[in-house]
Amino acid sequence: MEFAESTPLYLQIAGQMSLAIRQGTLARGEKLPSVRETARQYGVAQTTVVQAYHWLEDARLITARPRSGFYVASRLVELPEPQISRPMKRPRAVSLDWLGQRVMGRKQMEGMVSFSSGTPGLDLLNADRVRRAVARSVQQHRQLLCTYPGSDGHEDARKALARYAVGLGCSLDPERIIITGGCMDSVALCLRTVTLPGDVVALESPTHFSFLEVLQALQLRALEIPTHPRHGLSLDALQLALNTQPIKALLLVPTLSNPLGCCMPQTERKRLVQMAQQHNLPVIEDAIYADLAEGDAMRRTLKSYDSSGQVMLCHSFSKTLAPGLRLGWLEAGRWTDALRQIKEMQAGGQSAVLELALADLITQAGHAAAMRQLRAGIAVRVEQARQVIARSFPQGTRVSDPPGGLLLWLELPARLDAMALHEACLQEQILIAPGTVFATAGRFRHGVRIGLGGDWTQAHWHALQRVGEMACQMLSS
Amino acid sequence: MEFAESTPLYLQIAGQMSLAIRQGTLARGEKLPSVRETARQYGVAQTTVVQAYHWLEDARLITARPRSGFYVASRLVELPEPQISRPMKRPRAVSLDWLGQRVMGRKQMEGMVSFSSGTPGLDLLNADRVRRAVARSVQQHRQLLCTYPGSDGHEDARKALARYAVGLGCSLDPERIIITGGCMDSVALCLRTVTLPGDVVALESPTHFSFLEVLQALQLRALEIPTHPRHGLSLDALQLALNTQPIKALLLVPTLSNPLGCCMPQTERKRLVQMAQQHNLPVIEDAIYADLAEGDAMRRTLKSYDSSGQVMLCHSFSKTLAPGLRLGWLEAGRWTDALRQIKEMQAGGQSAVLELALADLITQAGHAAAMRQLRAGIAVRVEQARQVIARSFPQGTRVSDPPGGLLLWLELPARLDAMALHEACLQEQILIAPGTVFATAGRFRHGVRIGLGGDWTQAHWHALQRVGEMACQMLSS
Repeated sequence: MEFAESTPLYLQIAGQMSLAIRQGTLARGEKLPSVRETARQYGVAQTTVVQAYHWLEDARLITARPRSGFYVASRLVELPEPQISRPMKRPRAVSLDWLGQRVMGRKQMEGMVSFSSGTPGLDLLNADRVRRAVARSVQQHRQLLCTYPGSDGHEDARKALARYAVGLGCSLDPERIIITGGCMDSVALCLRTVTLPGDVVALESPTHFSFLEVLQALQLRALEIPTHPRHGLSLDALQLALNTQPIKALLLVPTLSNPLGCCMPQTERKRLVQMAQQHNLPVIEDAIYADLAEGDAMRRTLKSYDSSGQVMLCHSFSKTLAPGLRLGWLEAGRWTDALRQIKEMQAGGQSAVLELALADLITQAGHAAAMRQLRAGIAVRVEQARQVIARSFPQGTRVSDPPGGLLLWLELPARLDAMALHEACLQEQILIAPGTVFATAGRFRHGVRIGLGGDWTQAHWHALQRVGEMACQMLSS
Repeated sequence: MEFAESTPLYLQIAGQMSLAIRQGTLARGEKLPSVRETARQYGVAQTTVVQAYHWLEDARLITARPRSGFYVASRLVELPEPQISRPMKRPRAVSLDWLGQRVMGRKQMEGMVSFSSGTPGLDLLNADRVRRAVARSVQQHRQLLCTYPGSDGHEDARKALARYAVGLGCSLDPERIIITGGCMDSVALCLRTVTLPGDVVALESPTHFSFLEVLQALQLRALEIPTHPRHGLSLDALQLALNTQPIKALLLVPTLSNPLGCCMPQTERKRLVQMAQQHNLPVIEDAIYADLAEGDAMRRTLKSYDSSGQVMLCHSFSKTLAPGLRLGWLEAGRWTDALRQIKEMQAGGQSAVLELALADLITQAGHAAAMRQLRAGIAVRVEQARQVIARSFPQGTRVSDPPGGLLLWLELPARLDAMALHEACLQEQILIAPGTVFATAGRFRHGVRIGLGGDWTQAHWHALQRVGEMACQMLSS
């Protein structure tokens, strides 16, 4: 197995075992293989395995029994999960006063320890693998640097994306795939294609603040739909809304929704596509986190159930491979021609050299293994963060338990105001995202999104604990 | 002097001398230096100079006098210039039925000899210089491939652009420069910032069909302003329009406007900025062709006269360096903050690695020389094309004489319909752009734009002559 160079070996092994425990491959109470056996299995020194076991012990995932060995903990740390959201039943014009940008903009500030990012940093991604692919592409396709690309993207890159999409359960025609400047660019293009200013767009609640911002920029109204912390958007609530509101599009993240981390069950996905077909509702599916979900079943998209072109699939590799390539893609179903014209007129194509580097990366034999390894590295960090939160945050704090990804959603006890905590954290150079940026109308006043991505440092662990302590202090004062 | 590898040496010399003749550095009737002297001056063989002189003779720019030498032709081939446009005085909703896209889309067709492009091809650009810069940047900044870039563009690239902008007469703050996905992306962002659907935007007439398309996509109305074939947009007509119409923005190309190739005199530029300030009119200045203009004075932008942030400057190096980088930039004056928010929300940043490669390219010592050489290469081709047109098109055809760039605007005799000629050309696998795509309401029925860019081949010379022959046949039938 190929490992990222930056993550210590013991942490990589701990990450894989932590995944196995959380997924139930290693059952609760089960005895672990001996240190010697595990060392042989991974081809590492026994001291490395001892380090990994100690880390798992610290994380309370395993316990040591004297003179017997290591056992999977009989009960993992259980944290109460967030509650289902109950947003207002009427659409609202979005008017955020750029709160999200002002909050998130602070991550650029010198000395700030930021929990604003859900994107893996250089410690989790493989920058050298990306560099080699781009360098090869520049060498091989230099003439493309001096030629206007087609607006849809290079044919070979679109073919590679169609092959990749099989892993999302989709059988796509490369001729209908359109490459964009990133997943948000894809989403904005889809919205521009199927809506006009004043139209109502249905969203999860809470939802990604960038979605609210793009709605505001396009002068669209948001209708926030109740969303379950594990199972995602409530289809019953959506059905009710469709019966009573002039919804022109639904924009959602079925797998690892931001910020909740929820995943819609496959039966629900199938039902949603049927509902969309009945109501002729364009569904904009953001699948950017699909590759971060544990378990292949989670990666099957809404689009995979869509036989009539009702789903507009948006995706990019910015969360899994290379945020700096600035490439995304989409398949716009029935709206392909209309979207293609809008894109061609307003922006044109992307760098074909980078598109072909991406095509190389996602078709390399090692790509699936790299994704597994990335998920394991992420799982380690998230598990550890949940431990820190369990130990340091006030009793009654609810925390999401997402099956992948780097985002945790916290609900603080009702007496605690997340914006006040956000302000207090800023005083100590710590950035957390208050829940209010994930909804219109100042809702989720007790919510906090903790992003465990970006350039991660030891300081983050201390800072996370410190946020919990501050929350406790605010509660007791 | 450094030359592109692809252009034969004699043609490069001929191009430079042709420029000197057209600019008047070599006066009409003046005796040229001897072959020996010119060979010494350029450091080339005398046979090369003889070839160059023969080319210039073929192009009727010089004449040989027996036993005396070569003289600048006493009278250059004079072709009548196009007439000033007289568009309608009321704004119109743009509804092109995607004519431009349908026409231009045909350039992709196999075997087509296309005159649709105004962008230098691989024979005029230096793909290897670009490749080296990109390869260096990838090597040096590999970590940027795996990091989300800021939406405004990399700081070092913005600094390089500010330095470059000095050549456009501008003193810009790098903090207010915003890098985009190309010049049209810049223009679309500016329009989205200062207009709402239904607003009126003033344009040159004829204007770039992509401008009309982006207006249509944004549901803006076009008000076409009379435009002189040499001096550009009529300010008197604009003043009249400002007094009577609710113009929300002016979008124009002061240097080498597409398709006319006209350049607004500097005094007019100054006056236009004053008018814009008086009327609080946002002026979107597309300066993409500035580096292709012969004579440094032509490169001075409207923006250089703008002390109050009234001008939104849009630019890219897609016409001069590397269309495939897909980078542009802008400085949005008083609308910087608003535009920044729109961009950040809808698309985000570009690839920082490509931005830094561009920064490297435009700050290299040889860049100015590369631009001179590009202009010389272009001048050769355009001069030769004007010869072919003078010889093969019907009498009464008017042709623009742009001081740079690869676009020629033809006005056919009144009895000839350009769309019919376009259709006839398609039958022979030749693509020309009929005038109607450069205006609303089917105007310019006798106009033809001949683009001398793209991948140029010997077949283009035959095809251009054939277009003229077909025009003559249509006239006589």
